Amino acid sequence: MRSPWKVTMITLTTLHIASLRRKTSAFLVSRSISNQVMNRMHKQQLCLPHSKLFLSTTTKTTAPKIVAGEEKVIQDMLYRIRQCNNMPDEIRASLIIFELDGVRLGKVRPKMADLLCSVESPRGNGPVFELIQPSDSAGSPILTLSSKVAGTTVESRTEAVAHVTNELRQQGVITGWRDELFPVSDSFYNPPWFLIERAAVNSLGVLEYGVHINGLVKAEPSGNGGDSSTVMDPPPLMWMARRSATKSKFPGMLDHIVAGGQPAGLSLMENVVKECEEEAGIPEDIALRNVHPTGVISYEAYDPKREKVSRVVLFNYDLYLPHDFVPTPVDGEVEEFFLWSIDELKDSMAPDYPDPIKPNCYAVIIEFLLRAGFISPETPGYLDIVRELRSGDCR
Amino acid sequence: MRSPWKVTMITLTTLHIASLRRKTSAFLVSRSISNQVMNRMHKQQLCLPHSKLFLSTTTKTTAPKIVAGEEKVIQDMLYRIRQCNNMPDEIRASLIIFELDGVRLGKVRPKMADLLCSVESPRGNGPVFELIQPSDSAGSPILTLSSKVAGTTVESRTEAVAHVTNELRQQGVITGWRDELFPVSDSFYNPPWFLIERAAVNSLGVLEYGVHINGLVKAEPSGNGGDSSTVMDPPPLMWMARRSATKSKFPGMLDHIVAGGQPAGLSLMENVVKECEEEAGIPEDIALRNVHPTGVISYEAYDPKREKVSRVVLFNYDLYLPHDFVPTPVDGEVEEFFLWSIDELKDSMAPDYPDPIKPNCYAVIIEFLLRAGFISPETPGYLDIVRELRSGDCR
Repeated sequence: MRSPWKVTMITLTTLHIASLRRKTSAFLVSRSISNQVMNRMHKQQLCLPHSKLFLSTTTKTTAPKIVAGEEKVIQDMLYRIRQCNNMPDEIRASLIIFELDGVRLGKVRPKMADLLCSVESPRGNGPVFELIQPSDSAGSPILTLSSKVAGTTVESRTEAVAHVTNELRQQGVITGWRDELFPVSDSFYNPPWFLIERAAVNSLGVLEYGVHINGLVKAEPSGNGGDSSTVMDPPPLMWMARRSATKSKFPGMLDHIVAGGQPAGLSLMENVVKECEEEAGIPEDIALRNVHPTGVISYEAYDPKREKVSRVVLFNYDLYLPHDFVPTPVDGEVEEFFLWSIDELKDSMAPDYPDPIKPNCYAVIIEFLLRAGFISPETPGYLDIVRELRSGDCR
Repeated sequence: MRSPWKVTMITLTTLHIASLRRKTSAFLVSRSISNQVMNRMHKQQLCLPHSKLFLSTTTKTTAPKIVAGEEKVIQDMLYRIRQCNNMPDEIRASLIIFELDGVRLGKVRPKMADLLCSVESPRGNGPVFELIQPSDSAGSPILTLSSKVAGTTVESRTEAVAHVTNELRQQGVITGWRDELFPVSDSFYNPPWFLIERAAVNSLGVLEYGVHINGLVKAEPSGNGGDSSTVMDPPPLMWMARRSATKSKFPGMLDHIVAGGQPAGLSLMENVVKECEEEAGIPEDIALRNVHPTGVISYEAYDPKREKVSRVVLFNYDLYLPHDFVPTPVDGEVEEFFLWSIDELKDSMAPDYPDPIKPNCYAVIIEFLLRAGFISPETPGYLDIVRELRSGDCR
């Protein structure tokens, strides 16, 4: 890089640093900096925004790609991300580690830890869960499974934990029972230590996984007068689903064309194909040809009403569908499908948008909008989005 | 989602949990699981890999997209990422916070903090930098600028710090002097507290920013017999640059088509356009039409020889170039440009690859390979890559 700074140290030593303020101010005024920034400048003396500060005389300027109104869109996006990525610092600091065999598996609120420890084994040999003091006695207590009561195998632990979760279900602590077992591990790729009813996953704050698919349709290239220097595709459209009004969670809200929790027993791609078929009538051959993984988002959420902790990793995919393909509801979980433009997606971020999308779908769609270049990194807040989209554990 | 787990709890209670082992083993054997996994199973009893565990009888299986040899590619990628993302835990724990006006700006090794504090102001009123004990006296000391000596304005702090960095340059502590000033701030979008010679940035461990551009060429669509159900583009090629043999850092190594540090005074897009012109002869109109931002990587690196801390945020872009455009070295920093396939990019990840790419370019290229779907999230290590590509501060 030939830097615009090459002349600067000379400038500083010969023309004195005090002249900086005049030069930068003149530059900034000439760039029609917003009133907000100008006010801030006056308050903070030469505290100019990092990306705007100008100390060189050698630079040719070109228009930066700052889109009008994008600062609001980014703030709206942060609002949406924080609907699912919402673990207050003081709650995070209060969480008790759930650990087995020296490996951290979950995070539990103290009240939930007490509830888990209150359930005795049906064999009468004590509680399944126990709070122990780690060897460095200064540390916080750790929640674990009693090896005496729960044994040390996947089967014995699964059975012992099932007794506890059933008891807490009877007491109304664990709600939304699904009759589905989820594996409990410290990483997606590691074997499970035991299996647990899906409705109890966030009582233990263990990692959950899911797949989310952005269903896309390429726009027809707009005629550019045969200018071969334009290579980028025009903005695509995204297929949206409306959840059935009878669903227990988020009824009637907008959703991804296809999304679902990742159960044990299926590979990610098997799950993608299965969900494509069941939720949107997308045949296996079309899904396999046109879907590709694009990365991951992760977040942690705290539910103060139920003292529960969700720790979620979502595998994201883009699925480019043929123009002549229309998704069809198959399993009754979706009411309708329709296409949205990039602008409609951005508009839907507003906190008061009347027909909102399911919270964690917003996060995946925001990741898509950043990755596909529809949000400028020049705009304040962009790096907050990048950070918050992956603020949960990613293992 | 209609879950394959719906039958599982019944299975568990009626057929007994002990039968799990037989069923899962049979399934795994039928899927020709690798010997490695089988060995691990025997060692750990029913500890099956999370993504392989099978407890349902209702599932239709489709071939997961696991690519042969991808586990090695992912391990190679982690090796490459860790060449720049290498902050050992014990070093991280040792770092002293550099703070101004109560805001954290940098991270400094104790030895470097002592060196910074050893330099007296030329006015004879004490050292510019000082170590202070925070109000909660249990905490570690904090490095800051003496307001008595360095004042409280951007100009006075810049001048005072310039004196210190010049002294440390004379002592051989700060090397590679650039005569370029960088802004010191807690966030890319916030005004700087002061400016500092670029060569001293990692003595204070303050955030640095850069732009990296993946130069891409779309492959011609391979004839698929007029099958309109395939919508995905064939894999693109990537333009690679070879750095000039006379460059002070990484001479002769491979590099991005265009990349550079982000100086104050330019917007990101102005910097992208400038670097495109200077480094590869890409005209402004072609760059502006075809480039788009794709996200960010971040990392922290520790240089044990010099006790220095790099904290880096790189803004990534994809630039799709026309087929008939060939980049040309302009400013003498690049020796040649050539095209690589996705497979060549993957091969170059191997630790013993004879013609390697500059370390932080590897990280940006790996981010591209994941985002564009060339690495499967089924493969163990994928989530480690995602995590480590954004393990630095992102502000």
